[in-house]
Amino acid sequence: MTTAPAHASPASHPVRRTVGALADGREIIYFDDTAVAPREAVDTRRLGARSTAGHIRHDVLTGDWVAIAGHRMNRTFLPPKDLCPLCPTGRGSAPSEIPDGDYDVVVFENRFPSYAPVTEPVPVVGAGFEVAAAGGRTEVVCFTSDHDASFSTLPTTRVRTVIDAWGDRTAELGARGGVDHVFCFENRGQEIGVTLHHPHGQIYAYPYIPERTAIMLARAREHHARTGRLLGADVLADELADGARIVATGTHWVAYVPFAARWPMELHLVPRRDVPDLAVLDDDERDELATFYPELLRRLDRYHVDERGHGIAMPYIAAWHQAPAKQGRDVSRLFLQLMTILRAPGKLKYLAGSESGVGGWVNDAQPEAIAARLRDLAG
Amino acid sequence: MTTAPAHASPASHPVRRTVGALADGREIIYFDDTAVAPREAVDTRRLGARSTAGHIRHDVLTGDWVAIAGHRMNRTFLPPKDLCPLCPTGRGSAPSEIPDGDYDVVVFENRFPSYAPVTEPVPVVGAGFEVAAAGGRTEVVCFTSDHDASFSTLPTTRVRTVIDAWGDRTAELGARGGVDHVFCFENRGQEIGVTLHHPHGQIYAYPYIPERTAIMLARAREHHARTGRLLGADVLADELADGARIVATGTHWVAYVPFAARWPMELHLVPRRDVPDLAVLDDDERDELATFYPELLRRLDRYHVDERGHGIAMPYIAAWHQAPAKQGRDVSRLFLQLMTILRAPGKLKYLAGSESGVGGWVNDAQPEAIAARLRDLAG
Repeated sequence: MTTAPAHASPASHPVRRTVGALADGREIIYFDDTAVAPREAVDTRRLGARSTAGHIRHDVLTGDWVAIAGHRMNRTFLPPKDLCPLCPTGRGSAPSEIPDGDYDVVVFENRFPSYAPVTEPVPVVGAGFEVAAAGGRTEVVCFTSDHDASFSTLPTTRVRTVIDAWGDRTAELGARGGVDHVFCFENRGQEIGVTLHHPHGQIYAYPYIPERTAIMLARAREHHARTGRLLGADVLADELADGARIVATGTHWVAYVPFAARWPMELHLVPRRDVPDLAVLDDDERDELATFYPELLRRLDRYHVDERGHGIAMPYIAAWHQAPAKQGRDVSRLFLQLMTILRAPGKLKYLAGSESGVGGWVNDAQPEAIAARLRDLAG
Repeated sequence: MTTAPAHASPASHPVRRTVGALADGREIIYFDDTAVAPREAVDTRRLGARSTAGHIRHDVLTGDWVAIAGHRMNRTFLPPKDLCPLCPTGRGSAPSEIPDGDYDVVVFENRFPSYAPVTEPVPVVGAGFEVAAAGGRTEVVCFTSDHDASFSTLPTTRVRTVIDAWGDRTAELGARGGVDHVFCFENRGQEIGVTLHHPHGQIYAYPYIPERTAIMLARAREHHARTGRLLGADVLADELADGARIVATGTHWVAYVPFAARWPMELHLVPRRDVPDLAVLDDDERDELATFYPELLRRLDRYHVDERGHGIAMPYIAAWHQAPAKQGRDVSRLFLQLMTILRAPGKLKYLAGSESGVGGWVNDAQPEAIAARLRDLAG
């Protein structure tokens, strides 16, 4: 175990970072913001060898890469609370993924990774077929040890620690050889396929730049070459000038529904300052984000109401778009894309033929109406 | 009403094409392969004015367009069989979308369109925000008048008529001003969001080239400029040479699981001849497709089995990738992409954070294993 202050941990919010290893060698990192005993518990489980079966394949029709991760078929699926692998060990009936009896925020390597360190030779299938080792890494971020909490109702100090953990992982993973992009995200709700209820997010460190990120990078580069300005900054200025889709403004952050929103509810949360990723957010930006973001999430839980007028817990995807790890950092601009597939109570938007086949998006909701609804829900 | 042979209707499979209008002016086209009375029934419903509210918005971050179609929120959602809008009028308790008392195959303009002819001025929202009229068109294709049938079990002659209808619509819609791409597809199964059980597909005539089609076009152009060959033809040759992912071969058609499959089950059905779209398939190719394709669909319904060993009706998306209507016809190659989100009985693949956020795809299934399973299910 090694303990040290977290990456760029400021004096105003000291976070203690303790690195350990699970029984199969996977890394675990505690991020503690309260005074606690040293994180020295040992993982006593007998785990098989860690998964190394993944590889990535080149899709010649699109130029994209696809991760083939056959070993994930048996991953844990909606276990009862008593067997939650993300609760601290001792709360349930069996040792969990977290050896310690408590934690504030903890990050560890996913047991069922999409991108795993590859130790075996990668099969080469044919002259026209390109394969590469899936040299990335996938991590789980537990937002709290409280199984029944949600991100939107965490104490501000805990949210701030999650932000610091995201920044820490973005910097460390992005610096690794073989990692081209770091993506911090949260899937929330069974409707979008969550398999563990405990509040958690994930971090994917891709061994390539994924398709949508590559498209946005190319657009940002083209705009910068043509105008000398950042595309993301111009969009923010246009949204502020227009005002019709602005949902909330802070000293450091602005939230708006994008002009060409694709989802029944889509919200972009962007910093006022030009920053490429979470790692370089300063102390003031992190502090404001720790209250600004959860307040927006609480609005989502009031967006749809049931027959008795009660808010419906909103399923959502929260996707942090960052600059790629090793390029485009001078033109890319950080933003959070927050979106849902719940278009009305009991009715989901499906990514069917048009979206999944040819990439043609249809939105049944008017972006200005989404923004007006979200403004009404402030509080 | 005007009746004439369908586009390129051959002597061996004569199809009679009758064009009429629904009560609100939408076009309806009967494609009949049996000897029937003239399709002269009149739509007696009192329908409001047809929807003209749609427009498309430019997504400056990706360069893509998004259709905003707020009027679709009230579309028909899983009606009882008695109120099916796709059954012929007279079979249920109210007049349906099809005035006649029977039909073989029928196509009509969608009442809740994603792309509607625009008659009102399109709002311009701000200097940085580009809006255009959604000048395309969306059509519904009823595969049969039998509410309880499915595409996979239609008589061969009826499948052949559907193929002719697809070809007819591809040629006619693609020739229209303002249409840049024609996409014929079928969504099947409630798991992927189907709102009407009656066997039907859809045709979207986009007023732009959708994102994934544009990416594939750029790749095909680049490959052709570099090698002088068609990318799709080279992939087919590589798959045939490798063999590991081939599922079925015919005189005119080949089916294989793509090397970089994204979905738990994905199958590409490609012609041996270089053809850009469905409209230019010849008589022999259409005849073989009419048996080859349904046989593959029947395998899907045996792919997953329940606890008693019975096949589970497979939810699927069937997406015909064609050359864009007005460009790239010299480099693009027709293929059908057939995919599902059902990764195991009761377990769906969700397009969550990684796929929906950054476009990073992870497949839990090995493409060669999918192909082996599909080969085993021949019969």
